[in-house]
Amino acid sequence: INLHFTGDMHAITAANNLLCALIDNHMQQGNAINIDQRRILFRRCMDMNDRALRDVIVGLGGKVNGIPREDGFTITVASEVMAILCLCTDIADLKKRLGGILVAFNRDGGPVFAKDLNAEGAMAALLKDAVNPNLVQTLEGTPALIHGGPFANIAHGCNSVRATKLGLKLADYCITEAGFGSDLGAEKFMDIKCPAAGIFPSAVVLVATVRALKYGGGMDKKQLKTEDVNRLKSGLVNLGAHIENMQKFGVPVVVAINRFDTDTKDELGAIEEYCENLGAYYAQSRVFEKGGDGGTELAEMVVNACERPNSFKPLYDPSLPITEKIGILAEEIYGAARVEYSSAAKKSMAEIENLGAAGLPVCVAKTQYSLSDNPALLGRPTGFTLNVRDMKLSAGAGFIVVYTGDIMTMPGLPKKPAADGIDVGDDGKITGLF
Amino acid sequence: INLHFTGDMHAITAANNLLCALIDNHMQQGNAINIDQRRILFRRCMDMNDRALRDVIVGLGGKVNGIPREDGFTITVASEVMAILCLCTDIADLKKRLGGILVAFNRDGGPVFAKDLNAEGAMAALLKDAVNPNLVQTLEGTPALIHGGPFANIAHGCNSVRATKLGLKLADYCITEAGFGSDLGAEKFMDIKCPAAGIFPSAVVLVATVRALKYGGGMDKKQLKTEDVNRLKSGLVNLGAHIENMQKFGVPVVVAINRFDTDTKDELGAIEEYCENLGAYYAQSRVFEKGGDGGTELAEMVVNACERPNSFKPLYDPSLPITEKIGILAEEIYGAARVEYSSAAKKSMAEIENLGAAGLPVCVAKTQYSLSDNPALLGRPTGFTLNVRDMKLSAGAGFIVVYTGDIMTMPGLPKKPAADGIDVGDDGKITGLF
Amino acid sequence: INLHFTGDMHAITAANNLLCALIDNHMQQGNAINIDQRRILFRRCMDMNDRALRDVIVGLGGKVNGIPREDGFTITVASEVMAILCLCTDIADLKKRLGGILVAFNRDGGPVFAKDLNAEGAMAALLKDAVNPNLVQTLEGTPALIHGGPFANIAHGCNSVRATKLGLKLADYCITEAGFGSDLGAEKFMDIKCPAAGIFPSAVVLVATVRALKYGGGMDKKQLKTEDVNRLKSGLVNLGAHIENMQKFGVPVVVAINRFDTDTKDELGAIEEYCENLGAYYAQSRVFEKGGDGGTELAEMVVNACERPNSFKPLYDPSLPITEKIGILAEEIYGAARVEYSSAAKKSMAEIENLGAAGLPVCVAKTQYSLSDNPALLGRPTGFTLNVRDMKLSAGAGFIVVYTGDIMTMPGLPKKPAADGIDVGDDGKITGLF
Amino acid sequence: INLHFTGDMHAITAANNLLCALIDNHMQQGNAINIDQRRILFRRCMDMNDRALRDVIVGLGGKVNGIPREDGFTITVASEVMAILCLCTDIADLKKRLGGILVAFNRDGGPVFAKDLNAEGAMAALLKDAVNPNLVQTLEGTPALIHGGPFANIAHGCNSVRATKLGLKLADYCITEAGFGSDLGAEKFMDIKCPAAGIFPSAVVLVATVRALKYGGGMDKKQLKTEDVNRLKSGLVNLGAHIENMQKFGVPVVVAINRFDTDTKDELGAIEEYCENLGAYYAQSRVFEKGGDGGTELAEMVVNACERPNSFKPLYDPSLPITEKIGILAEEIYGAARVEYSSAAKKSMAEIENLGAAGLPVCVAKTQYSLSDNPALLGRPTGFTLNVRDMKLSAGAGFIVVYTGDIMTMPGLPKKPAADGIDVGDDGKITGLF
Repeated sequence: INLHFTGDMHAITAANNLLCALIDNHMQQGNAINIDQRRILFRRCMDMNDRALRDVIVGLGGKVNGIPREDGFTITVASEVMAILCLCTDIADLKKRLGGILVAFNRDGGPVFAKDLNAEGAMAALLKDAVNPNLVQTLEGTPALIHGGPFANIAHGCNSVRATKLGLKLADYCITEAGFGSDLGAEKFMDIKCPAAGIFPSAVVLVATVRALKYGGGMDKKQLKTEDVNRLKSGLVNLGAHIENMQKFGVPVVVAINRFDTDTKDELGAIEEYCENLGAYYAQSRVFEKGGDGGTELAEMVVNACERPNSFKPLYDPSLPITEKIGILAEEIYGAARVEYSSAAKKSMAEIENLGAAGLPVCVAKTQYSLSDNPALLGRPTGFTLNVRDMKLSAGAGFIVVYTGDIMTMPGLPKKPAADGIDVGDDGKITGLF
Repeated sequence: INLHFTGDMHAITAANNLLCALIDNHMQQGNAINIDQRRILFRRCMDMNDRALRDVIVGLGGKVNGIPREDGFTITVASEVMAILCLCTDIADLKKRLGGILVAFNRDGGPVFAKDLNAEGAMAALLKDAVNPNLVQTLEGTPALIHGGPFANIAHGCNSVRATKLGLKLADYCITEAGFGSDLGAEKFMDIKCPAAGIFPSAVVLVATVRALKYGGGMDKKQLKTEDVNRLKSGLVNLGAHIENMQKFGVPVVVAINRFDTDTKDELGAIEEYCENLGAYYAQSRVFEKGGDGGTELAEMVVNACERPNSFKPLYDPSLPITEKIGILAEEIYGAARVEYSSAAKKSMAEIENLGAAGLPVCVAKTQYSLSDNPALLGRPTGFTLNVRDMKLSAGAGFIVVYTGDIMTMPGLPKKPAADGIDVGDDGKITGLF
Repeated sequence: INLHFTGDMHAITAANNLLCALIDNHMQQGNAINIDQRRILFRRCMDMNDRALRDVIVGLGGKVNGIPREDGFTITVASEVMAILCLCTDIADLKKRLGGILVAFNRDGGPVFAKDLNAEGAMAALLKDAVNPNLVQTLEGTPALIHGGPFANIAHGCNSVRATKLGLKLADYCITEAGFGSDLGAEKFMDIKCPAAGIFPSAVVLVATVRALKYGGGMDKKQLKTEDVNRLKSGLVNLGAHIENMQKFGVPVVVAINRFDTDTKDELGAIEEYCENLGAYYAQSRVFEKGGDGGTELAEMVVNACERPNSFKPLYDPSLPITEKIGILAEEIYGAARVEYSSAAKKSMAEIENLGAAGLPVCVAKTQYSLSDNPALLGRPTGFTLNVRDMKLSAGAGFIVVYTGDIMTMPGLPKKPAADGIDVGDDGKITGLF
Repeated sequence: INLHFTGDMHAITAANNLLCALIDNHMQQGNAINIDQRRILFRRCMDMNDRALRDVIVGLGGKVNGIPREDGFTITVASEVMAILCLCTDIADLKKRLGGILVAFNRDGGPVFAKDLNAEGAMAALLKDAVNPNLVQTLEGTPALIHGGPFANIAHGCNSVRATKLGLKLADYCITEAGFGSDLGAEKFMDIKCPAAGIFPSAVVLVATVRALKYGGGMDKKQLKTEDVNRLKSGLVNLGAHIENMQKFGVPVVVAINRFDTDTKDELGAIEEYCENLGAYYAQSRVFEKGGDGGTELAEMVVNACERPNSFKPLYDPSLPITEKIGILAEEIYGAARVEYSSAAKKSMAEIENLGAAGLPVCVAKTQYSLSDNPALLGRPTGFTLNVRDMKLSAGAGFIVVYTGDIMTMPGLPKKPAADGIDVGDDGKITGLF
C-alpha cells in the first residue's frame, strides 16, 4: 500500500475526465448532437482538495481551444464514476451504467448520455482493473477488502457491491464500514446499496465513546478525562437518534462502546442503561488497546444480534415522489421540521421528473457535523428547516443527488494544509502523514 | 502492464496539482508571501488530450472559492515535475529540484519558489515510488526499463537519469530511445540530459525506411510500395540533416535501415551510398519481421561504432547568452536563417536573466513534423525564420523552455478520438487500442 | 426630446463606470487600501437590455490588464447612482451620498466606500447637469418634469426629489407617477422617498380598466371587448389589494377608471360599487379619448380627496430589524404567508447589521407581474412564501435592496427585439419605436 | 458645452453596444444564422479608460444568461461606429456602413454582418442626431465644428466628413486638425478620409516649438528655457521627418513655429533655416499669447501656401496587396527597415483576403510617442522592425485596422487618475479638469 494505493482513484479520475474531454471535443468538432454548452451537468474531477477548481471556465483562448463554458471540478470520491464503480456488478453492468450517465442537455432540451458520445467503452477500459476489489490485511492478518471510496457526506458512501459480495462469499461474517453516522453512510447503505445489490444486513453496529458523548453534552474538550455522568447523559440524545434511526430499518442494533482508560464505571453504566431502555444491544470494545482479543465481547454480541429476528426494509419506497422521499429522510432520520427547496432545486427536480427518473432513490449530500444540514447544530437538533439547494440526476449510478445546506463536493485546504508537515527522508520514509 | 502502467503518470499529476492547490490556498488564506495572482507561472496538469483545459479561469464563485485568476493545464508529460523526476538522482535531489520550481512572482516582482510554500516534502512523498525505474521485458524476454515520458516536442524528451544509470550498471550495452528526431529528442539528450547526468553516448542510431524517404521525396502515400529511386533520392536530404546534426556532437552515427518486403535493391543501395558519402555507418534491420535475429547485423554495426573514436561535446556552452544558444540550435540543427522573438518572449527572457538563470540549457518546444517550427515545411527547409513565442524558466528541472511556432503543451482530440473505438469485453479484454 | 433625451442616463452610466474603473485601477496600482477582489459589491452598469453582461469576468489578459475578478452589469436604472441622483437635494448632498457608496470590503473585512477612492468629486462633476430636473410639456402644453428613472421592480422607483420639490413649488397640485402598482412604486414612494424628502402625498390615484380586471378574472385576451360582469368581479380582488395597500398609509385613495368604448354600464357600475364598499373614491377618466377635457371629473375627485383628512404614516419604522421590515411588507403589502431567506441573504444581512446600517428602509426588488415574487401568481395570491435571494446595502442612496424570487437587475432582449423593427428614414424620421 | 458635450460619444457607445446585445441575444435565442461564439470580432465599447475591460468573459451564470464567450471593450473613440459616423455622408450611407460591419464568422466560416442581424436601422436611430456636426465658437467668436473623435493612434483620427464638408461650404478657408503627427492623424487624413470624401488639402501646417525640439534633441526637461542651439539642431531630425512625410503627398507644407518668450533669436533662426533647406514654408505663431492677432503672420503664410501648385496624391494605391500597403507606410512614413507579421496577423490577413476586402486602405494603430511602434525610440529612428500584431477588417468604415507594437485600444488609468483631482463645488463649478 502506498499513497496511491492500487491506483483506483487515478483510474476513476481518468475515466471521468476522459468523458469530459469527449464532451468538449464533440462540441468543438461541429457538435453533431447539438450539446447545449450552457447545460452540461457532468463535471471534471480531481483527487485533491482544491477549492479554486470548484467553479472554473474552460475552453478559453480562441477558436482552437474549444467552446468557452462554465465548468467545475468535484473531488474524485464524489464523481458519479466512483458511484458506478461501487454499484456495478460486472464489466457489462459497468459499461451500461457508464453509458447511462446524463452528461448534458441538447439545444432542444433533450438529454445527452455518455453513450451518445460512445464513451462507455473507453471509460470501462480505463476502469477494467479498478473494478476488481483489493485484498489487504490488518496487522493481525485478518483479510480486508478495500474498494471504492465515495464519501458519505457528498456521495453514497458505500464501498463496492463487488467487494461486499466477495466478502459474503468468502467469510461467515462480513462487516461493512458505512461511515460518518446513521444519517449518512448507514442510511445510504440501507436505502441505496442494499436494494441495488439485493442484500441486507443482519445487524448494525454503532460505535460510541464516553468522551464523545460528554463532549456532545457540552463538556469542555480539555476536561473530557474527568468523570461527569450528567454531561454524558445530556450527550446521549445524539446516540439515541442514531439507534432509533437504525431501528427504523428493522435490523438489530448493537452499540459498541469503545473503551478508554479514563472511562468510569458509572459513565459506562449510564450508556448501557440508555441502550437497554431503547432496546439496543451493547458491548464494550477494547480493540485499540488489546488488538483482536479486546473485541471478543463485542463480536459475540454481534453474532448474537445476527441471529435475532430481522425485518429489514428500506425506509422509503423509491417510487414515491422525490419530495416525499426527501421529506421522509428529513423527518425520520435528520429530525427536520420542514424542507425548503431553492428555485434551482425546483427546476432540477422538474427536469428529473421530465426524464422519467423520479423513481430512483435519493442520495443526500449533507454535512457530517450535524444531524441537520447546519454544521453548527450539535446534539439532536429539532424544529429546523432542511434547505435543498439543488439536485442532480446520477442516471448511471441510479440515484438522485440532493445537495443540502452549504455542503460542497470539492473541499478546500485549511490554513495549514497537511502537506505542510509531510516529508520523505533520504531513505524514502514518509513522515507527517498522521 | 495496464493502461495506467505503474501509475507514475498519476503520481506526477498528483504532485503537480498539489503544488497548484497549495498556491491557490496560500493566496486564499491571507497570502502571507504576497503572490501576484497575475503572474503565476506554474500550471495545473492532466494526463489527457483536452484542449478545453489549455486556458481556464479558476477560483470563481465568490469569497469561499478562492482568488480568481487565469490558469491552464498542460499535459502531464510536459509538466516540470515530469522533467524533474527524469533528471533527479535520488530523493534528496528530487526534493531540492521540486523546491526549486519557480511558481510565481510576488507583488514586488520577486520570485516565489515551491519551497517558499513548503511544498517539496509532500510532493516528494507522492513521488516516492514513482522515482524508481520500472523493469519490464520484451516479447523475447529482453529486459527494458520504462521510466518517465516527457515528450520531446513539448518537453525535454528523455527517460529518467536513474533508469539510464541503472541500465548502464546492469548491461554491457544500454540503449536509450530519444524520440521524434535528431532535432528534438536526440539534441535534448545530448545538450540537457548528458551534461546533467555526467554521461555520454558511444554511438547514435538513426532509423530510416525506404518508404518514409520516398514520401519525404514527394511520392504519393498510396504508391509507396512501388520502386522509385529518384523520389527516394529527393527524400534523402532529410536523413542527411539528421546525420549531420548528430555528427556535430562528435559521436559515430549508425543509420538503421528498417527493411520492408517491398524495398528494392536499388533503393536500399541508394540509401547506403548516401550514408557512405556522409561518413555514417549503416546496417539493415529486419527486427519487425524476424525478431531479435533480424537485428544481428545492426547490433554488430553498433558495437563496431561504439569502438570508434568519440569526441562528444554538447552543441553549445550553456553559459552563452540565451539568444546565442537558441541561435546555435536554430542554425545548426533546424536550419533556420534567423530567429524572431515575440514581445512576450523578450519580456520572459529579461525576467529569466534578472533571476540569474540565463546560464541554463534551453529546451525548445517545437513541432515534430518539420525540422522547422512550421509543420508544413517538409524535407530539409532552409531560409525560414524560427519564431520564438515565449519562454519559461524550469528552474527546478534546470532548463529554459523555449516555445516556438504554434506548438502547444496541451494537445486536443481529433474529430474521431481513439476513445471512440476502444472497448472492453465482458471478459475484461480491451479492444481498439491500436 | 430624442432617444437619448437629455443624456441623464448616459451621465449616470459614466459616473457609475468611472467608480468601477477607479476600483480596478486602485487594485492594479498596488491596492493601498487592500480591497478584496472577491468581495466587490459595486457593479458596472449599461443602459441596455443585455443579459450577457449579467455575470462577467473582468481584468483578464495578464499583468497589464488588471486583477481578474467576477463582476456584472446592472441596467443603468438600477444603479445606486441613479437612486442617489433621485434622492439628493443639492450638489453637496449628491457628493456626500456618492462618497457613501459601499463599494467593497477590504481583506480585513472592513468596508470600502467610494470616498476612500476619492471618487465622489469626479462622479459629481459628471452628474453636475444631470441633477437638474428636465422640463418638458405635454401635447396640450401642460408642463411636466421628467427626471430620473429607477424602475420600481428593480430599484426604488421614484423620480427625483429635486423634481418633485420643484413641482410642489411651482404648481397648486403636483402629481407624481409611481409605477407598476401599490406593491412597488407606491410603497417605495411612501416608505423611502417621502421620509427622505420630508414630504407626503395628499391623495393617491389608482388606475383601473374594465379590460384588465376581466383579464385578471380569467377572461381570454381576445374576448375582452365582450361584457362579462362575473369575470370582472373575480378580477376585482387585485384592485382591492391595491386599494387596501394604499389605505394602510393613511391617505385618501381615488380609483381612476380609465374608460374604453366597449366598457358597459354594468361593468363600470360593478367597479364603482366595489370601490364604494372599500371606502375609496372613484371617477371615470376619458383622457386618452378626449385629452385634458376627459380628465375633469377625475381631477375634481382628486381635488376633493386632497381635502379629506390625511394621517399619512410610512408602513414601518425603519429602526425595526431588517427581517421585521421585510416581514411587514410581505404580509401587509404582498399578502405572503411567510418569508424565507437564502443562505446568501442571511450572510448579506449579517454584514449589513455589522456595518450598523440595519436601520435603513428596505427597497424590495420584486417582479411587477404579481403581488407575490412569482410572476405566475395572478389576482391576489395568498399563502405563498416570499423568497429573499440576497440583499445589498445601498449606503449612499440610503436603503437596503432586497432581491426576491428570480428578479434580475439586468433584463435580456426577447426573441424579436424591438430593435428589429426600428429604422430611420433618409429624412431622419425614426419608425418602429412603438 | 459640458463634460458630455452633445452626447455624441454616448450615442456611439449605445449604438455599438446595441449591436453587441443583438449578437449575444441572437445566439441565446436559437442562433438561427449559426454565429460562431469563438469568432466574434465586434467588441463592446465604453467611453472610459478602463483596462479591466480589455479582456472579459460574458454570458456567464447559466442558461438564462446567454452563451459564455470571450469579449472585450474598446474605448468608444476606437469603435468602428465612431469611424462610420465620421466617414458617412448621410443617413442612407450611415445605415449602409453600419449594416456592413463584419461582426463575426458563422460555424461554416462565412462572414456575419450587422445587417444579418437587422441591426443597422436601430443603430442609425440612436445616431440620428449624432451624425449632425456640432457648431461651437472660440473665445474670439470664430466658429468651430467639433464632430467625431477617433484617436489617431488607435483609430483613423479624423473628424467627420460631414463637418469638413460643411466647413468647406461655409468658409473661405477650412482648417482640420489631424492630430498626433504626420505619421498618424495626417497620414490617415490623406490616405483614408480624403479619398473617401473626394476632397484634398490645399496645404499642410505642422506645429513646432523650440522647447519640444530641444527636448527631442536630448535636453533635460528642466533646462528647456535655456538657449541651446546645438540640442535644438539635434532635435530637428524629427521635424524633418514630418516635413518630408507630408511633402510626399504633394502638398505645400507650412511649419508653424509656436513661440514662447524664452525662445532666442538663434534658436528660431535655426528652425527657419532648417525649414528653408527642406523647402518648407514657415511662420511664427503667437496665438497663445496674443489671441487671433498673434496668428496673422502664420495665416498669411498659409494663404500663400494654399495658392502654390498642389499635386496631392495618396501615398499608396489601395488596390495593392495588404503587405505592400503596410510596407510603404513602414518605410516611407515611419522609417522602418522591415515589417514582421505575427502568426495571428497572418491568419487575420488571410481571412480579410478571403473576404475580398484586401483592397481597402489600411489604418495603422501605432504609438503616438515615436515614429516607430516602440514608444521608447525618440527622434527619427531607423533600422527598426515594425511588428504587426494583428489586423481587423472594419468593413463598414471601409478600412483595415493594423495593430502594431503593444498599442491597445483600451487605455488604463494611471496611478493617480485625473478623477482624483476633479471636484465640483456647491455652486456647480467643476475644478481640477486641467
